[in-house]
Amino acid sequence: MIKFDTSHAMEKAFKAAQEAALKGEVPVGAVVLSPDGETLSIAHNRVEETYDASAHAELLAMRLAAQKVGSPRLVGCTVVVTLEPCAMCAAAISHFRCERLVFGAYDPKGGGVEHGARVFEKRSCFHKPEIIGGVRGREISQLLKGFFQQLR
Amino acid sequence: MIKFDTSHAMEKAFKAAQEAALKGEVPVGAVVLSPDGETLSIAHNRVEETYDASAHAELLAMRLAAQKVGSPRLVGCTVVVTLEPCAMCAAAISHFRCERLVFGAYDPKGGGVEHGARVFEKRSCFHKPEIIGGVRGREISQLLKGFFQQLR
Repeated sequence: MIKFDTSHAMEKAFKAAQEAALKGEVPVGAVVLSPDGETLSIAHNRVEETYDASAHAELLAMRLAAQKVGSPRLVGCTVVVTLEPCAMCAAAISHFRCERLVFGAYDPKGGGVEHGARVFEKRSCFHKPEIIGGVRGREISQLLKGFFQQLR
Repeated sequence: MIKFDTSHAMEKAFKAAQEAALKGEVPVGAVVLSPDGETLSIAHNRVEETYDASAHAELLAMRLAAQKVGSPRLVGCTVVVTLEPCAMCAAAISHFRCERLVFGAYDPKGGGVEHGARVFEKRSCFHKPEIIGGVRGREISQLLKGFFQQLR
């Protein structure tokens, strides 16, 4: 059970996603919260800027948070991200030992939590977070749709 | 079809894995080769050193190679890694658009290619590399076994 409200964190993640869009990056934003609900890190996609195909919002946010904590394990921490994580990021959430995942829009094409590889449902998954999906889904889907329509 | 010999690259990856063990990191090493078979990057696991649970050998090697190439897409490149990639790294191989994956030992517990999430076998997988697994598997398994026995 989540012990604190994550709507502020989702608002920060959403703003980070909007910033990403302005920079020509796929608009996804993420925040990592400490066990007490404090913001440890905020990040958005930076794939094009950094020439790093793994620079997804939640992966960057977890790496930043781990630097802050001084450990590769984010025990008790919550990842709040605007889009359903892909298989890479879902598996990374296990590697970082995050306790909770709160995500916005579902991603039937690229998602790896409720779709595709369904990383956390595999027997071999050694760490499964508590998961809450679909938060502010419509609004976030609109942001993504608008971005991809502009690209065409 | 692989157009060049990857055994030298696997030897380099194996040496990187041995180095990792000396530093107390899980002994996995990786190399990324250009479309012509030239070495673009070499890396080993650095999870503990860098407080980064995503700092797996092949992910680091791909990030380094992409910096070198100046693009988040490693078109035509080959990833050579001593251990079957986990779901995170397998999905990253798709994100980086690598053309080939050559790996050493199979990893029934943590692997995400031939085990667990089987990332590349999902319909939603948008980029599947050519895959060759089991190269020098016994020798590499020995290195890993030795490392984990020492830890206990």
